[in-house]
Amino acid sequence: MFQFRNDYSVGAHPRVLEALAATNLEGNVGYGADAHCAKCADLIRALCAAPQADVQFLIGGTQTNFTAIAAFLRPWEGVICAATGHINGHEGGAVEATGHKLFPVEAGPEGKLTPAMLEPVLRACADPHMAKAALVYLSDATETGGVYRLAELEALSAFCRDNGLLLFLDGARLGCALTAEDNDVTLADLARLCDAFYLGGTKNGALMGEALVLCTPALQPEFFRIKKQRGAVLAKGWLLGAQFQALLEDELYWELARHANRMAGALQAGLLAKGYEMLNVTTTNQIFPVVPRSLLETLDRVCTYEVWAELGDRTAVRFVTSFATAQAEVDGLLAALPDRR
Amino acid sequence: MFQFRNDYSVGAHPRVLEALAATNLEGNVGYGADAHCAKCADLIRALCAAPQADVQFLIGGTQTNFTAIAAFLRPWEGVICAATGHINGHEGGAVEATGHKLFPVEAGPEGKLTPAMLEPVLRACADPHMAKAALVYLSDATETGGVYRLAELEALSAFCRDNGLLLFLDGARLGCALTAEDNDVTLADLARLCDAFYLGGTKNGALMGEALVLCTPALQPEFFRIKKQRGAVLAKGWLLGAQFQALLEDELYWELARHANRMAGALQAGLLAKGYEMLNVTTTNQIFPVVPRSLLETLDRVCTYEVWAELGDRTAVRFVTSFATAQAEVDGLLAALPDRR
Amino acid sequence: MFQFRNDYSVGAHPRVLEALAATNLEGNVGYGADAHCAKCADLIRALCAAPQADVQFLIGGTQTNFTAIAAFLRPWEGVICAATGHINGHEGGAVEATGHKLFPVEAGPEGKLTPAMLEPVLRACADPHMAKAALVYLSDATETGGVYRLAELEALSAFCRDNGLLLFLDGARLGCALTAEDNDVTLADLARLCDAFYLGGTKNGALMGEALVLCTPALQPEFFRIKKQRGAVLAKGWLLGAQFQALLEDELYWELARHANRMAGALQAGLLAKGYEMLNVTTTNQIFPVVPRSLLETLDRVCTYEVWAELGDRTAVRFVTSFATAQAEVDGLLAALPDRR
Amino acid sequence: MFQFRNDYSVGAHPRVLEALAATNLEGNVGYGADAHCAKCADLIRALCAAPQADVQFLIGGTQTNFTAIAAFLRPWEGVICAATGHINGHEGGAVEATGHKLFPVEAGPEGKLTPAMLEPVLRACADPHMAKAALVYLSDATETGGVYRLAELEALSAFCRDNGLLLFLDGARLGCALTAEDNDVTLADLARLCDAFYLGGTKNGALMGEALVLCTPALQPEFFRIKKQRGAVLAKGWLLGAQFQALLEDELYWELARHANRMAGALQAGLLAKGYEMLNVTTTNQIFPVVPRSLLETLDRVCTYEVWAELGDRTAVRFVTSFATAQAEVDGLLAALPDRR
Repeated sequence: MFQFRNDYSVGAHPRVLEALAATNLEGNVGYGADAHCAKCADLIRALCAAPQADVQFLIGGTQTNFTAIAAFLRPWEGVICAATGHINGHEGGAVEATGHKLFPVEAGPEGKLTPAMLEPVLRACADPHMAKAALVYLSDATETGGVYRLAELEALSAFCRDNGLLLFLDGARLGCALTAEDNDVTLADLARLCDAFYLGGTKNGALMGEALVLCTPALQPEFFRIKKQRGAVLAKGWLLGAQFQALLEDELYWELARHANRMAGALQAGLLAKGYEMLNVTTTNQIFPVVPRSLLETLDRVCTYEVWAELGDRTAVRFVTSFATAQAEVDGLLAALPDRR
Repeated sequence: MFQFRNDYSVGAHPRVLEALAATNLEGNVGYGADAHCAKCADLIRALCAAPQADVQFLIGGTQTNFTAIAAFLRPWEGVICAATGHINGHEGGAVEATGHKLFPVEAGPEGKLTPAMLEPVLRACADPHMAKAALVYLSDATETGGVYRLAELEALSAFCRDNGLLLFLDGARLGCALTAEDNDVTLADLARLCDAFYLGGTKNGALMGEALVLCTPALQPEFFRIKKQRGAVLAKGWLLGAQFQALLEDELYWELARHANRMAGALQAGLLAKGYEMLNVTTTNQIFPVVPRSLLETLDRVCTYEVWAELGDRTAVRFVTSFATAQAEVDGLLAALPDRR
Repeated sequence: MFQFRNDYSVGAHPRVLEALAATNLEGNVGYGADAHCAKCADLIRALCAAPQADVQFLIGGTQTNFTAIAAFLRPWEGVICAATGHINGHEGGAVEATGHKLFPVEAGPEGKLTPAMLEPVLRACADPHMAKAALVYLSDATETGGVYRLAELEALSAFCRDNGLLLFLDGARLGCALTAEDNDVTLADLARLCDAFYLGGTKNGALMGEALVLCTPALQPEFFRIKKQRGAVLAKGWLLGAQFQALLEDELYWELARHANRMAGALQAGLLAKGYEMLNVTTTNQIFPVVPRSLLETLDRVCTYEVWAELGDRTAVRFVTSFATAQAEVDGLLAALPDRR
Repeated sequence: MFQFRNDYSVGAHPRVLEALAATNLEGNVGYGADAHCAKCADLIRALCAAPQADVQFLIGGTQTNFTAIAAFLRPWEGVICAATGHINGHEGGAVEATGHKLFPVEAGPEGKLTPAMLEPVLRACADPHMAKAALVYLSDATETGGVYRLAELEALSAFCRDNGLLLFLDGARLGCALTAEDNDVTLADLARLCDAFYLGGTKNGALMGEALVLCTPALQPEFFRIKKQRGAVLAKGWLLGAQFQALLEDELYWELARHANRMAGALQAGLLAKGYEMLNVTTTNQIFPVVPRSLLETLDRVCTYEVWAELGDRTAVRFVTSFATAQAEVDGLLAALPDRR
């Protein structure tokens, strides 16, 4: 079976595992107050050219999303997101469980928001009988593999600042976004344009962990307390710092993401060449072929994958690559699938 | 420096690390739906003689406490706990953040609850203008090192069942409790007497992880959904199952706990022999010497520890041992401390 | 100025005020444990042919909606509603503030749900990474003046029971719904088909108050406690029972609603006759003429009303009638508006 | 039966009812945006000598407490209150239901807090693993009839400001507090010393209603939205403004409170003269005689009252007076009770 189900099906990159072994018996202060977390935070601040930023390590994406949003908002405030946004779908109602309304907006096949999509929500929320939209949630890469261009982010950021909205970027797949061939955004851009964002570790070489960058100083005070309250403080907190150190110190993080993108790109190109359609053509590590339903039996036999959407008598499926995807798997899957030209 | 600050200052037992390395590139289904978690759940059910139990793996103790309590209770229900209970102190108001009131009761130096302590809360809650006490939270070992005796748990369990209260046991240090010299409780007893309890991994040889046993079938449906909602589903969920497998398959879990208890016992005995007083004498891996304030300077120089309580001109400190504590550390600390006879 | 802004612009019907004066110095037990509430609850049970029902008086509609929903649901459960549903719009995110996700669905100009609209939500929620849809929220009359037919409610109720969904009906304007010319639903039907619903007092002759009917016994236990917790217990609770008694004992409630409907119907007929279009033609006390934007200035001069929606260069406005609307106001407004044929 | 159960057993003072009748058919804008609320807010600002204050009308005390606290606090913050504080007892866990921890402290028979009681909580909360105490909740009069002296409030206020704590005063019985014979506090003092407080209407002549004064400008923005979200916006909002106008314009509010205090004082003096003991002697409208249990049968026959506390073989009961208590009721009850000298 070729593995294309997702990017969290294998453990950590070997160099990450080595780092964990190396720190195993050091004896570190708990809860992230250790030297690994401190050094790694310094490193991330430097990469972001954001000396004022606070860097907080959390365990997973859902947790990072709801903890940050709960920390940032007042009770009457809500979140604008794409209807396809991860917080609106596959997080079990986690943001609402912290008391905050979502304002999902239709965002096209790429799942990217624009100021024009935000405006109607703001107009509606001018009515004080409504919850007040106060934060915009983006994902980069998006849930459908899209990548924000710098000009798009700049427009969103300017719109948010003009309208008193916080801008928060879910970077569960930030590695793949920033190494995509059509990307022109840097970490420093994100730190300049967002109020907060994170670098995902879980989906890019770590066992677990997300590095949240609180760019805006007003969002920083007492963040540890809400992390603790929401179960996001790992007792052996250095495990997160040490993993991100291993990933970031020698550019491993970007190398792994680039590899995943390359594998997905090769698979997508191969499928297009064989006559397959894509729901939307992507440049990151998720691709979305649309196949006749009759092909699913074949797929079930040769690979792991996910059904993404039913489209009449056809089905959009999702293939995801990771740092651990081998070229042989891509070639094998392509060979196993019938030509559709 | 001798390390006695806590039992989460080092990583995992080497055999646990090996298990993680062994599973690293297997390719497992995410979110705990893998074979490691399934097998480990079977193993725990067998150890508990509780075939009806559901076993859920979560990441940390605070998270396990609030997720379970939020899952079990209706909005108007609250939790009786010892005033010293972990949920009442060092969890950042996590249970209240899920909407539930705590009814803390004074529980003596050992931190153990009795039916007589619960009764006044129940009487007060008969008034429908109050939140309704609906769950009793215990810790075993307690936050001050105490261990419940079987007769005590049986009395609590009977009282809870007679009064419509759920019984939930925080087992962050369950290994040390069940291997304490004065323990007469088994996992099967817990599964029979509690509605839910957990085996702590974080403080007993794992990188992280708690194994929650939902003994009462009514508490089981849809538990995955609330885990997801509260950020307690690890994407690479097999990491938890594989660690607990490594710990439980060959009794390593109990061996590690017994070692920690032995180290703490030796330190406590040595200190008593040197004329030190204890806040309360314990049989688990936490001990609480009461020292003159002037001794803190010495302590700061020779070991890590925590200040537990200020008692006039004396200070209660806490020393904690773990699977990684060496006899030489115990001997070293004893040698470094002055005789007080 | 002719008053068509809403149905809560005047106080209570005189007979309701008389009832309050009559009970003013009686000396009643507080919190709704008085004889007025008890008798009125009996009366409502009889009108509903639902001897098993529990009747709870609350103060306002938003409060009734979120208190009932919070009482009925478990933390991981959510609510399917029309996108136009009151809980999704003008209640300040109140349901989400209790921790529950909304699943809004597009419901057409009349704002009525059908089983076909619910099905896709259920399919999506089969994924345990999602919140679980567990309750369907309807309004009768709907927010756009629509009225459910008995066959429609029966289909919804059957679908809900087949799929483990609770059915909750917001009856803030139930009087106008059940007295609409195209209505064929009775209170007994509602009690048979819904798990809970309420009779609105605020918008039909009372100073304030909603009478919530908990039809399904499993929803009844401890409801008082959550009312108390959410601020929905009026200290002088008999004020609610006494008002509903005055409204229901001599059919005043239905008479007032029928009057409001007649006034709205006359206004709508007059406007149609003068060549005005309606967003949707209604049979209840809210009508929605679509006017050229240039007419708003005239409207601002002659009447109170609300802007409902901007439609290019035209505007949908809302006129609402109440028990206090006089025929002269209808005639006056019609006379003041230009002919558009 | 003489009525001493509580101060919300009768409706409104006749002048309040007249005000409601007078405004009944005026046609007012809803949700408190009417002229009555506006004028009454001006009046309260003037009485408080606090031109910067925002005045918000809410429906009841529990609702006012949890709405204000939820509005003021961030998710990780908690509330210091007396263990006897209303929010800790008879509000159904309402504050916790908004996600905030209470830190109850023992406060003596009068139920009054002092800086010395707050200090240990602050010290404990310096630990970032704890929720952070951020608001102090007082009641004046307290739940046991006590009255704060100006010097006491000044000390608390100074302590709060020095320590970054908000000071919030529950004034459900503020009329009785400020007209007590031992009171030396004015509304202007409260507005100067507290961040927010309220004047209770429910227990002092209104059908319902509390007037919340937001003294500190930072607490004012968007308060309407959270009121709406928590069900605290009355659709016919002018009902609250009009009642408080009637109460405050001609000093009726203070006259009614003074009367209630006088009646309670006479009853207390009479009982002391007959040899009864008091739990604590009060100067407001609640008194707490301690009687032998055998007397309860007599009490049950001659008056309404509440059992306050069981004290071995004696029982503390509570008698409460109101604007509607007649001297004849006091005399009658005194005559009906046996001499205990």
